[in-house]
Amino acid sequence: MNGVIGVFDSGIGGLTVARELASRFPAEEFVYLGDTARLPYGSKSPETVRSYAVRCTAFLARFPLKTLVVACNTVSSMALPNIAGMVSVPVLGVIEPGAATAVRRSVSGRIGVIGQPVTINSGAYEQAIKRLRPEAVVTSAVSPLLVPLAEEGWMGSPVVRLVLERYLAPVLAADVDSLVLGCTHYPLFKADIAAVTRQRGLAVELVDSASAVADELERLINAGLIKRRPDGGQGSIRCFVTDSPASFASVGARFWGAGFGAIEQVDL
Amino acid sequence: MNGVIGVFDSGIGGLTVARELASRFPAEEFVYLGDTARLPYGSKSPETVRSYAVRCTAFLARFPLKTLVVACNTVSSMALPNIAGMVSVPVLGVIEPGAATAVRRSVSGRIGVIGQPVTINSGAYEQAIKRLRPEAVVTSAVSPLLVPLAEEGWMGSPVVRLVLERYLAPVLAADVDSLVLGCTHYPLFKADIAAVTRQRGLAVELVDSASAVADELERLINAGLIKRRPDGGQGSIRCFVTDSPASFASVGARFWGAGFGAIEQVDL
Repeated sequence: MNGVIGVFDSGIGGLTVARELASRFPAEEFVYLGDTARLPYGSKSPETVRSYAVRCTAFLARFPLKTLVVACNTVSSMALPNIAGMVSVPVLGVIEPGAATAVRRSVSGRIGVIGQPVTINSGAYEQAIKRLRPEAVVTSAVSPLLVPLAEEGWMGSPVVRLVLERYLAPVLAADVDSLVLGCTHYPLFKADIAAVTRQRGLAVELVDSASAVADELERLINAGLIKRRPDGGQGSIRCFVTDSPASFASVGARFWGAGFGAIEQVDL
Repeated sequence: MNGVIGVFDSGIGGLTVARELASRFPAEEFVYLGDTARLPYGSKSPETVRSYAVRCTAFLARFPLKTLVVACNTVSSMALPNIAGMVSVPVLGVIEPGAATAVRRSVSGRIGVIGQPVTINSGAYEQAIKRLRPEAVVTSAVSPLLVPLAEEGWMGSPVVRLVLERYLAPVLAADVDSLVLGCTHYPLFKADIAAVTRQRGLAVELVDSASAVADELERLINAGLIKRRPDGGQGSIRCFVTDSPASFASVGARFWGAGFGAIEQVDL
Protein backbone atom coordinates (compact mmCIF):
# COMPACT_ATOMS: atom_id res chain seq x y z
CA MET A 1 0.00 0.00 0.00
CA ASN A 2 1.15 3.51 -0.82
CA GLY A 3 0.45 6.09 1.88
CA VAL A 4 -0.78 9.67 1.81
CA ILE A 5 1.14 12.92 2.26
CA GLY A 6 -0.09 14.85 5.30
CA VAL A 7 0.23 18.64 5.26
CA PHE A 8 -0.67 20.86 8.17
CA ASP A 9 -0.78 24.55 8.86
CA SER A 10 -2.33 26.94 11.35
CA GLY A 11 -4.78 27.89 8.65
CA ILE A 12 -5.06 28.44 4.99
CA GLY A 13 -1.59 29.61 3.97
CA GLY A 14 -0.26 26.06 3.85
CA LEU A 15 -2.36 25.53 0.75
CA THR A 16 0.40 27.36 -1.15
CA VAL A 17 2.72 24.55 -0.05
CA ALA A 18 0.21 21.80 -0.82
CA ARG A 19 -0.39 23.27 -4.25
CA GLU A 20 3.31 23.32 -5.05
CA LEU A 21 3.64 19.69 -3.90
CA ALA A 22 0.59 18.62 -5.92
CA SER A 23 1.90 20.32 -9.05
CA ARG A 24 5.14 18.34 -8.82
CA PHE A 25 3.55 15.07 -7.73
CA PRO A 26 0.14 15.08 -9.37
CA ALA A 27 -0.57 11.41 -8.67
CA GLU A 28 -0.16 11.75 -4.90
CA GLU A 29 -2.97 11.79 -2.36
CA PHE A 30 -2.83 14.65 0.14
CA VAL A 31 -4.57 15.16 3.45
CA TYR A 32 -4.51 18.80 4.57
CA LEU A 33 -5.34 20.09 8.04
CA GLY A 34 -5.80 23.81 8.72
CA ASP A 35 -6.35 24.78 12.38
CA THR A 36 -8.55 27.70 11.36
CA ALA A 37 -10.43 27.92 14.67
CA ARG A 38 -7.24 28.83 16.52
CA LEU A 39 -5.20 30.73 13.94
CA PRO A 40 -2.99 32.68 13.88
CA TYR A 41 -0.18 30.75 15.58
CA GLY A 42 2.57 33.26 14.81
CA SER A 43 1.61 35.76 17.49
CA LYS A 44 0.96 33.23 20.29
CA SER A 45 3.33 31.79 22.85
CA PRO A 46 5.66 28.88 22.00
CA GLU A 47 3.94 26.67 24.62
CA THR A 48 0.50 27.26 23.13
CA VAL A 49 1.78 26.69 19.58
CA ARG A 50 3.40 23.41 20.66
CA SER A 51 0.23 22.14 22.29
CA TYR A 52 -1.78 22.96 19.15
CA ALA A 53 0.84 21.30 16.93
CA VAL A 54 0.65 18.11 18.99
CA ARG A 55 -3.13 17.97 18.62
CA CYS A 56 -2.91 18.53 14.86
CA THR A 57 -0.29 15.80 14.50
CA ALA A 58 -2.39 13.36 16.51
CA PHE A 59 -5.25 13.99 14.11
CA LEU A 60 -3.19 13.47 10.96
CA ALA A 61 -1.53 10.38 12.45
CA ARG A 62 -4.87 8.57 12.01
CA PHE A 63 -4.26 8.52 8.25
CA PRO A 64 -1.86 6.08 6.55
CA LEU A 65 0.88 8.74 6.22
CA LYS A 66 4.08 8.21 4.28
CA THR A 67 5.36 11.66 5.21
CA LEU A 68 4.17 14.68 7.15
CA VAL A 69 4.87 18.17 5.82
CA VAL A 70 4.67 20.99 8.36
CA ALA A 71 3.80 23.92 6.11
CA CYS A 72 3.57 26.40 8.99
CA ASN A 73 6.80 28.31 9.62
CA THR A 74 5.91 28.95 13.25
CA VAL A 75 5.37 25.26 14.02
CA SER A 76 8.44 24.30 11.97
CA SER A 77 10.55 26.78 13.92
CA MET A 78 9.92 25.32 17.37
CA ALA A 79 7.78 22.19 17.47
CA LEU A 80 9.39 19.75 15.01
CA PRO A 81 10.99 17.63 17.76
CA ASN A 82 7.60 17.28 19.47
CA ILE A 83 5.98 16.22 16.19
CA ALA A 84 8.74 13.89 15.03
CA GLY A 85 8.35 11.93 18.26
CA MET A 86 4.71 11.21 17.45
CA VAL A 87 4.97 9.62 13.99
CA SER A 88 7.22 6.99 12.39
CA VAL A 89 7.46 8.66 8.96
CA PRO A 90 9.74 11.48 7.76
CA VAL A 91 8.63 14.92 9.03
CA LEU A 92 9.52 17.87 6.79
CA GLY A 93 9.43 21.40 8.12
CA VAL A 94 9.91 24.52 6.03
CA ILE A 95 12.84 26.09 7.91
CA GLU A 96 15.73 23.84 6.86
CA PRO A 97 14.73 23.74 3.17
CA GLY A 98 14.21 27.52 3.08
CA ALA A 99 17.54 28.14 4.79
CA ALA A 100 19.33 25.77 2.40
CA THR A 101 17.84 27.48 -0.64
CA ALA A 102 18.81 30.93 0.66
CA VAL A 103 22.38 29.80 1.34
CA ARG A 104 22.63 28.27 -2.14
CA ARG A 105 21.35 31.40 -3.87
CA SER A 106 23.19 34.04 -1.85
CA VAL A 107 26.46 35.28 -3.30
CA SER A 108 27.31 37.88 -0.65
CA GLY A 109 26.29 35.76 2.35
CA ARG A 110 24.04 38.61 3.56
CA ILE A 111 20.67 36.95 3.96
CA GLY A 112 17.36 38.44 5.12
CA VAL A 113 14.45 36.65 6.78
CA ILE A 114 10.94 37.98 7.35
CA GLY A 115 8.33 36.10 9.35
CA GLN A 116 5.73 36.16 12.12
CA PRO A 117 6.92 36.99 15.66
CA VAL A 118 7.24 33.45 17.07
CA THR A 119 9.15 32.23 14.00
CA ILE A 120 11.61 35.10 14.03
CA ASN A 121 12.03 35.15 17.81
CA SER A 122 12.81 31.43 17.82
CA GLY A 123 16.00 32.19 15.84
CA ALA A 124 15.41 28.98 13.86
CA TYR A 125 16.17 30.43 10.42
CA GLU A 126 19.30 32.18 11.61
CA GLN A 127 20.59 28.98 13.23
CA ALA A 128 19.77 26.85 10.17
CA ILE A 129 21.51 29.31 7.85
CA LYS A 130 24.60 29.53 10.05
CA ARG A 131 24.88 25.75 10.34
CA LEU A 132 25.25 25.66 6.55
CA ARG A 133 27.32 28.84 6.19
CA PRO A 134 28.81 29.99 9.48
CA GLU A 135 30.03 33.35 8.17
CA ALA A 136 26.59 34.36 6.84
CA VAL A 137 25.16 37.66 8.12
CA VAL A 138 21.46 37.16 8.83
CA THR A 139 19.08 40.09 9.31
CA SER A 140 15.56 39.26 10.44
CA ALA A 141 12.36 41.28 10.72
CA VAL A 142 8.90 40.47 12.04
CA SER A 143 6.09 41.33 9.64
CA PRO A 144 2.84 40.42 11.40
CA LEU A 145 0.52 42.60 9.30
CA LEU A 146 1.30 40.70 6.11
CA VAL A 147 -0.95 37.83 7.20
CA PRO A 148 -4.15 39.86 7.64
CA LEU A 149 -3.24 41.90 4.54
CA ALA A 150 -3.06 38.64 2.53
CA GLU A 151 -6.39 37.54 3.94
CA GLU A 152 -7.90 40.90 2.96
CA GLY A 153 -6.51 40.32 -0.54
CA TRP A 154 -4.80 43.74 -0.64
CA MET A 155 -1.85 42.58 -2.75
CA GLY A 156 -0.62 45.41 -4.98
CA SER A 157 -2.20 48.17 -2.87
CA PRO A 158 -0.49 51.35 -1.61
CA VAL A 159 -1.10 50.10 1.96
CA VAL A 160 0.96 46.98 1.28
CA ARG A 161 3.78 49.06 -0.23
CA LEU A 162 3.93 51.32 2.84
CA VAL A 163 3.83 48.35 5.22
CA LEU A 164 6.58 46.57 3.29
CA GLU A 165 8.77 49.68 3.22
CA ARG A 166 8.51 49.83 7.01
CA TYR A 167 9.08 46.13 7.67
CA LEU A 168 11.83 45.69 5.07
CA ALA A 169 13.81 48.80 6.06
CA PRO A 170 16.28 47.03 8.40
CA VAL A 171 16.67 44.07 6.05
CA LEU A 172 17.37 46.23 3.00
CA ALA A 173 19.67 48.50 5.01
CA ALA A 174 21.75 45.36 5.65
CA ASP A 175 22.16 45.01 1.89
CA VAL A 176 20.94 41.41 1.68
CA ASP A 177 21.01 39.63 -1.67
CA SER A 178 18.47 36.97 -0.74
CA LEU A 179 15.36 37.15 1.40
CA VAL A 180 13.52 34.20 2.94
CA LEU A 181 9.73 34.65 2.91
CA GLY A 182 9.29 32.93 6.26
CA CYS A 183 5.52 32.54 6.30
CA THR A 184 3.19 30.69 3.95
CA HIS A 185 1.22 33.87 3.21
CA TYR A 186 4.13 35.98 2.09
CA PRO A 187 4.64 34.57 -1.43
CA LEU A 188 1.40 36.40 -2.33
CA PHE A 189 3.42 39.62 -1.95
CA LYS A 190 6.33 38.61 -4.20
CA ALA A 191 5.51 41.31 -6.77
CA ASP A 192 5.12 43.98 -4.06
CA ILE A 193 8.38 43.01 -2.37
CA ALA A 194 10.19 43.01 -5.71
CA ALA A 195 8.82 46.50 -6.41
CA VAL A 196 10.08 47.81 -3.06
CA THR A 197 13.56 46.31 -3.49
CA ARG A 198 13.82 47.54 -7.09
CA GLN A 199 12.88 51.04 -5.94
CA ARG A 200 15.92 50.88 -3.67
CA GLY A 201 18.04 49.73 -6.61
CA LEU A 202 18.60 46.32 -5.01
CA ALA A 203 18.49 42.90 -6.64
CA VAL A 204 17.20 40.49 -4.01
CA GLU A 205 16.40 36.80 -4.57
CA LEU A 206 13.12 35.88 -2.91
CA VAL A 207 13.10 32.42 -1.30
CA ASP A 208 9.70 30.82 -1.05
CA SER A 209 9.20 28.07 1.57
CA ALA A 210 6.67 26.32 -0.63
CA SER A 211 9.09 25.53 -3.43
CA ALA A 212 11.96 24.92 -1.01
CA VAL A 213 10.06 22.20 0.84
CA ALA A 214 8.87 20.75 -2.48
CA ASP A 215 12.55 20.48 -3.53
CA GLU A 216 13.27 18.66 -0.30
CA LEU A 217 10.38 16.24 -0.75
CA GLU A 218 11.58 15.57 -4.30
CA ARG A 219 15.04 14.80 -2.97
CA LEU A 220 13.68 12.31 -0.42
CA ILE A 221 11.49 10.65 -3.04
CA ASN A 222 14.36 10.42 -5.55
CA ALA A 223 16.54 8.95 -2.82
CA GLY A 224 13.92 6.25 -2.28
CA LEU A 225 13.21 7.36 1.28
CA ILE A 226 9.58 8.10 0.47
CA LYS A 227 7.67 5.86 -1.94
CA ARG A 228 6.30 7.60 -5.00
CA ARG A 229 2.89 6.87 -6.50
CA PRO A 230 3.23 5.80 -10.16
CA ASP A 231 2.67 8.69 -12.58
CA GLY A 232 -0.56 8.66 -14.49
CA GLY A 233 -2.75 8.00 -11.44
CA GLN A 234 -5.29 10.57 -10.36
CA GLY A 235 -4.13 12.56 -7.32
CA SER A 236 -6.41 14.11 -4.71
CA ILE A 237 -6.52 16.44 -1.74
CA ARG A 238 -8.82 16.04 1.21
CA CYS A 239 -9.06 19.06 3.51
CA PHE A 240 -9.92 19.28 7.19
CA VAL A 241 -10.40 22.54 9.10
CA THR A 242 -11.30 23.34 12.71
CA ASP A 243 -13.48 26.38 11.93
CA SER A 244 -16.32 26.58 9.43
CA PRO A 245 -15.36 25.22 5.98
CA ALA A 246 -17.23 28.10 4.30
CA SER A 247 -14.63 30.79 4.88
CA PHE A 248 -11.81 28.32 4.15
CA ALA A 249 -13.37 27.54 0.78
CA SER A 250 -13.68 31.19 -0.20
CA VAL A 251 -10.26 32.37 1.00
CA GLY A 252 -8.78 29.11 -0.33
CA ALA A 253 -9.79 30.04 -3.84
CA ARG A 254 -7.33 32.98 -3.66
CA PHE A 255 -4.50 30.68 -2.57
CA TRP A 256 -5.12 27.50 -4.51
CA GLY A 257 -7.37 28.39 -7.41
CA ALA A 258 -10.58 26.61 -8.26
CA GLY A 259 -11.88 23.30 -6.99
CA PHE A 260 -9.97 21.42 -4.38
CA GLY A 261 -11.63 18.33 -2.87
CA ALA A 262 -13.97 17.92 0.05
CA ILE A 263 -13.55 20.17 3.11
CA GLU A 264 -14.62 18.72 6.45
CA GLN A 265 -14.77 20.38 9.87
CA VAL A 266 -13.19 18.60 12.84
CA ASP A 267 -12.96 19.41 16.54
CA LEU A 268 -9.45 18.93 17.95
CA MET B 1 -21.65 39.60 50.46
CA ASN B 2 -20.96 41.85 47.50
CA GLY B 3 -19.99 40.08 44.28
CA VAL B 4 -17.40 40.75 41.58
CA ILE B 5 -17.85 42.18 38.10
CA GLY B 6 -16.81 39.70 35.42
CA VAL B 7 -15.49 41.06 32.12
CA PHE B 8 -14.58 38.91 29.19
CA ASP B 9 -13.12 39.42 25.76
CA SER B 10 -11.46 37.41 23.02
CA GLY B 11 -8.20 38.98 24.06
CA ILE B 12 -6.74 42.16 25.31
CA GLY B 13 -9.00 44.83 23.82
CA GLY B 14 -11.59 44.39 26.55
CA LEU B 15 -9.14 45.99 28.95
CA THR B 16 -10.27 49.33 27.49
CA VAL B 17 -13.76 48.48 28.77
CA ALA B 18 -12.51 47.23 32.15
CA ARG B 19 -10.43 50.37 32.59
CA GLU B 20 -13.43 52.60 31.90
CA LEU B 21 -15.54 50.62 34.40
CA ALA B 22 -12.79 50.75 37.02
CA SER B 23 -12.36 54.50 36.63
CA ARG B 24 -16.08 55.03 37.34
CA PHE B 25 -16.36 52.39 40.07
CA PRO B 26 -12.94 52.39 41.72
CA ALA B 27 -14.05 50.34 44.73
CA GLU B 28 -15.27 47.40 42.64
CA GLU B 29 -13.51 44.06 42.23
CA PHE B 30 -13.11 42.90 38.64
CA VAL B 31 -12.29 39.51 37.20
CA TYR B 32 -11.12 39.72 33.57
CA LEU B 33 -10.80 36.82 31.16
CA GLY B 34 -9.03 37.21 27.79
CA ASP B 35 -9.14 34.17 25.50
CA THR B 36 -5.74 35.05 24.05
CA ALA B 37 -4.92 31.49 22.89
CA ARG B 38 -7.81 31.55 20.42
CA LEU B 39 -8.08 35.20 19.42
CA PRO B 40 -9.19 36.79 17.19
CA TYR B 41 -12.88 35.89 17.29
CA GLY B 42 -14.03 38.48 14.75
CA SER B 43 -12.86 36.58 11.68
CA LYS B 44 -14.10 33.15 12.76
CA SER B 45 -17.47 31.49 12.21
CA PRO B 46 -20.48 32.26 14.44
CA GLU B 47 -20.61 28.62 15.63
CA THR B 48 -16.97 28.65 16.72
CA VAL B 49 -17.36 32.02 18.45
CA ARG B 50 -20.44 30.73 20.32
CA SER B 51 -18.63 27.63 21.53
CA TYR B 52 -15.70 29.73 22.78
CA ALA B 53 -18.08 32.19 24.48
CA VAL B 54 -19.80 29.34 26.32
CA ARG B 55 -16.46 28.04 27.64
CA CYS B 56 -15.40 31.52 28.79
CA THR B 57 -18.71 32.07 30.55
CA ALA B 58 -18.47 28.71 32.31
CA PHE B 59 -15.06 29.76 33.62
CA LEU B 60 -16.21 33.15 34.93
CA ALA B 61 -19.35 31.60 36.44
CA ARG B 62 -17.10 30.00 39.07
CA PHE B 63 -16.62 33.45 40.62
CA PRO B 64 -19.26 35.14 42.82
CA LEU B 65 -20.44 37.39 39.96
CA LYS B 66 -22.91 40.21 40.41
CA THR B 67 -22.84 41.04 36.71
CA LEU B 68 -21.07 39.83 33.59
CA VAL B 69 -19.87 42.36 31.02
CA VAL B 70 -19.20 41.00 27.55
CA ALA B 71 -16.62 43.48 26.26
CA CYS B 72 -16.17 41.71 22.93
CA ASN B 73 -18.35 43.12 20.15
CA THR B 74 -18.30 39.85 18.22
CA VAL B 75 -19.57 37.81 21.18
CA SER B 76 -22.08 40.53 22.07
CA SER B 77 -23.42 40.52 18.52
CA MET B 78 -24.41 36.87 18.38
CA ALA B 79 -23.87 34.91 21.59
CA LEU B 80 -25.61 36.91 24.34
CA PRO B 81 -28.64 34.57 24.50
CA ASN B 82 -26.30 31.58 24.94
CA ILE B 83 -24.44 33.36 27.74
CA ALA B 84 -27.50 34.78 29.50
CA GLY B 85 -28.87 31.25 29.85
CA MET B 86 -25.78 30.19 31.81
CA VAL B 87 -25.72 32.74 34.64
CA SER B 88 -28.31 34.21 36.98
CA VAL B 89 -26.92 37.77 37.03
CA PRO B 90 -27.40 40.63 34.55
CA VAL B 91 -25.35 40.17 31.36
CA LEU B 92 -24.29 43.37 29.59
CA GLY B 93 -23.11 43.32 26.00
CA VAL B 94 -21.65 46.28 24.15
CA ILE B 95 -24.05 46.38 21.17
CA GLU B 96 -27.21 47.78 22.79
CA PRO B 97 -25.40 50.49 24.78
CA GLY B 98 -23.34 51.52 21.74
CA ALA B 99 -26.43 51.64 19.54
CA ALA B 100 -28.35 53.69 22.14
CA THR B 101 -25.52 56.21 22.44
CA ALA B 102 -25.27 56.59 18.67
CA VAL B 103 -29.02 57.13 18.35
CA ARG B 104 -28.95 59.73 21.14
CA ARG B 105 -26.07 61.65 19.58
CA SER B 106 -27.12 61.52 15.94
CA VAL B 107 -29.03 64.53 14.64
CA SER B 108 -29.42 63.43 11.03
CA GLY B 109 -30.21 59.79 11.76
CA ARG B 110 -27.42 58.70 9.41
CA ILE B 111 -25.27 56.43 11.54
CA GLY B 112 -22.10 54.54 10.64
CA VAL B 113 -20.75 51.35 12.22
CA ILE B 114 -17.30 49.81 11.79
CA GLY B 115 -16.36 46.42 13.20
CA GLN B 116 -14.83 43.01 12.61
CA PRO B 117 -16.48 40.74 10.00
CA VAL B 118 -18.61 38.56 12.30
CA THR B 119 -19.93 41.58 14.20
CA ILE B 120 -20.89 43.50 11.07
CA ASN B 121 -22.25 40.46 9.22
CA SER B 122 -24.48 39.62 12.19
CA GLY B 123 -26.40 42.85 11.55
CA ALA B 124 -26.70 43.30 15.34
CA TYR B 125 -25.82 47.00 15.44
CA GLU B 126 -28.13 47.84 12.57
CA GLN B 127 -31.03 45.98 14.22
CA ALA B 128 -30.37 47.57 17.61
CA ILE B 129 -30.23 51.06 16.10
CA LYS B 130 -33.41 50.55 14.10
CA ARG B 131 -35.30 49.22 17.10
CA LEU B 132 -34.65 52.58 18.78
CA ARG B 133 -35.02 54.76 15.68
CA PRO B 134 -36.72 52.92 12.82
CA GLU B 135 -36.04 55.62 10.21
CA ALA B 136 -32.27 55.64 10.86
CA VAL B 137 -30.01 54.99 7.87
CA VAL B 138 -27.19 52.68 8.97
CA THR B 139 -24.03 52.20 6.91
CA SER B 140 -21.62 49.50 8.07
CA ALA B 141 -18.08 48.57 7.07
CA VAL B 142 -15.77 45.74 8.11
CA SER B 143 -12.31 46.90 9.22
CA PRO B 144 -10.35 43.75 10.08
CA LEU B 145 -6.87 45.26 9.79
CA LEU B 146 -7.47 47.71 12.62
CA VAL B 147 -7.00 44.94 15.19
CA PRO B 148 -3.49 43.88 14.12
CA LEU B 149 -2.60 47.55 13.54
CA ALA B 150 -3.57 48.29 17.15
CA GLU B 151 -1.52 45.35 18.35
CA GLU B 152 1.44 46.64 16.34
CA GLY B 153 0.95 50.02 18.03
CA TRP B 154 0.92 51.88 14.70
CA MET B 155 -1.54 54.55 15.82
CA GLY B 156 -0.84 57.85 14.07
CA SER B 157 1.11 56.27 11.20
CA PRO B 158 0.60 56.90 7.46
CA VAL B 159 -0.34 53.22 7.10
CA VAL B 160 -3.25 53.66 9.51
CA ARG B 161 -4.43 56.78 7.66
CA LEU B 162 -4.44 54.93 4.31
CA VAL B 163 -6.23 51.93 5.81
CA LEU B 164 -8.85 54.15 7.44
CA GLU B 165 -9.44 56.09 4.23
CA ARG B 166 -10.16 52.81 2.48
CA TYR B 167 -12.39 51.33 5.19
CA LEU B 168 -14.25 54.54 5.99
CA ALA B 169 -14.95 55.52 2.37
CA PRO B 170 -18.46 53.98 2.15
CA VAL B 171 -19.39 55.23 5.62
CA LEU B 172 -18.27 58.80 4.95
CA ALA B 173 -19.88 58.75 1.49
CA ALA B 174 -23.17 58.08 3.32
CA ASP B 175 -22.66 61.37 5.19
CA VAL B 176 -23.03 59.89 8.68
CA ASP B 177 -22.92 62.22 11.69
CA SER B 178 -22.08 59.52 14.23
CA LEU B 179 -19.89 56.46 13.96
CA VAL B 180 -19.93 53.47 16.28
CA LEU B 181 -16.44 52.06 16.94
CA GLY B 182 -17.68 48.47 17.05
CA CYS B 183 -14.57 46.74 18.36
CA THR B 184 -12.68 47.19 21.63
CA HIS B 185 -9.45 48.01 19.78
CA TYR B 186 -10.81 50.84 17.68
CA PRO B 187 -10.86 53.61 20.31
CA LEU B 188 -7.06 53.60 20.03
CA PHE B 189 -7.56 55.13 16.56
CA LYS B 190 -9.89 57.94 17.65
CA ALA B 191 -7.39 60.64 16.70
CA ASP B 192 -6.66 58.99 13.33
CA ILE B 193 -10.35 58.61 12.53
CA ALA B 194 -11.03 62.22 13.52
CA ALA B 195 -8.20 63.36 11.23
CA VAL B 196 -9.65 61.42 8.27
CA THR B 197 -13.18 62.76 8.81
CA ARG B 198 -11.92 66.35 9.28
CA GLN B 199 -9.98 66.07 6.05
CA ARG B 200 -13.30 65.34 4.33
CA GLY B 201 -14.82 68.37 6.06
CA LEU B 202 -17.17 66.17 8.12
CA ALA B 203 -18.05 66.45 11.80
CA VAL B 204 -18.63 62.90 13.03
CA GLU B 205 -19.33 61.89 16.63
CA LEU B 206 -17.31 58.81 17.57
CA VAL B 207 -19.15 56.35 19.81
CA ASP B 208 -16.93 54.21 21.97
CA SER B 209 -18.37 50.90 23.30
CA ALA B 210 -16.30 51.19 26.46
CA SER B 211 -17.96 54.34 27.73
CA ALA B 212 -21.38 53.28 26.39
CA VAL B 213 -21.34 50.05 28.41
CA ALA B 214 -20.03 51.92 31.45
CA ASP B 215 -23.05 54.26 31.16
CA GLU B 216 -25.32 51.22 31.07
CA LEU B 217 -23.69 49.67 34.12
CA GLU B 218 -24.04 52.98 35.95
CA ARG B 219 -27.75 53.04 35.09
CA LEU B 220 -28.27 49.51 36.43
CA ILE B 221 -26.36 50.32 39.62
CA ASN B 222 -28.27 53.57 40.14
CA ALA B 223 -31.53 51.69 39.59
CA GLY B 224 -30.50 49.29 42.36
CA LEU B 225 -30.39 46.29 40.02
CA ILE B 226 -26.70 45.71 40.73
CA LYS B 227 -25.33 46.25 44.23
CA ARG B 228 -22.59 48.86 44.48
CA ARG B 229 -19.54 48.49 46.68
CA PRO B 230 -19.29 51.42 49.14
CA ASP B 231 -16.94 54.15 47.91
CA GLY B 232 -13.63 54.42 49.67
CA GLY B 233 -12.84 50.72 49.44
CA GLN B 234 -9.84 49.53 47.46
CA GLY B 235 -10.84 48.03 44.11
CA SER B 236 -8.92 45.37 42.25
CA ILE B 237 -8.63 43.53 38.94
CA ARG B 238 -7.61 39.91 38.60
CA CYS B 239 -6.77 38.80 35.06
CA PHE B 240 -6.93 35.37 33.45
CA VAL B 241 -5.68 34.58 29.96
CA THR B 242 -5.54 31.38 27.90
CA ASP B 243 -2.17 32.09 26.25
CA SER B 244 1.06 33.11 27.95
CA PRO B 245 0.60 36.02 30.40
CA ALA B 246 3.88 37.58 29.20
CA SER B 247 2.58 39.01 25.93
CA PHE B 248 -0.68 40.02 27.61
CA ALA B 249 1.26 42.01 30.18
CA SER B 250 3.30 43.87 27.58
CA VAL B 251 0.50 44.64 25.11
CA GLY B 252 -1.78 45.36 28.07
CA ALA B 253 0.43 48.24 29.13
CA ARG B 254 -0.56 50.03 25.89
CA PHE B 255 -4.27 49.54 26.60
CA TRP B 256 -4.50 49.94 30.35
CA GLY B 257 -1.41 51.76 31.49
CA ALA B 258 0.89 50.59 34.22
CA GLY B 259 0.31 47.92 36.82
CA PHE B 260 -2.86 45.91 36.77
CA GLY B 261 -3.11 42.97 39.19
CA ALA B 262 -2.04 39.37 38.89
CA ILE B 263 -2.30 37.62 35.50
CA GLU B 264 -2.88 33.87 35.53
CA GLN B 265 -2.98 31.43 32.64
CA VAL B 266 -5.89 28.99 32.41
CA ASP B 267 -6.77 26.19 30.00
CA LEU B 268 -10.40 26.30 28.85
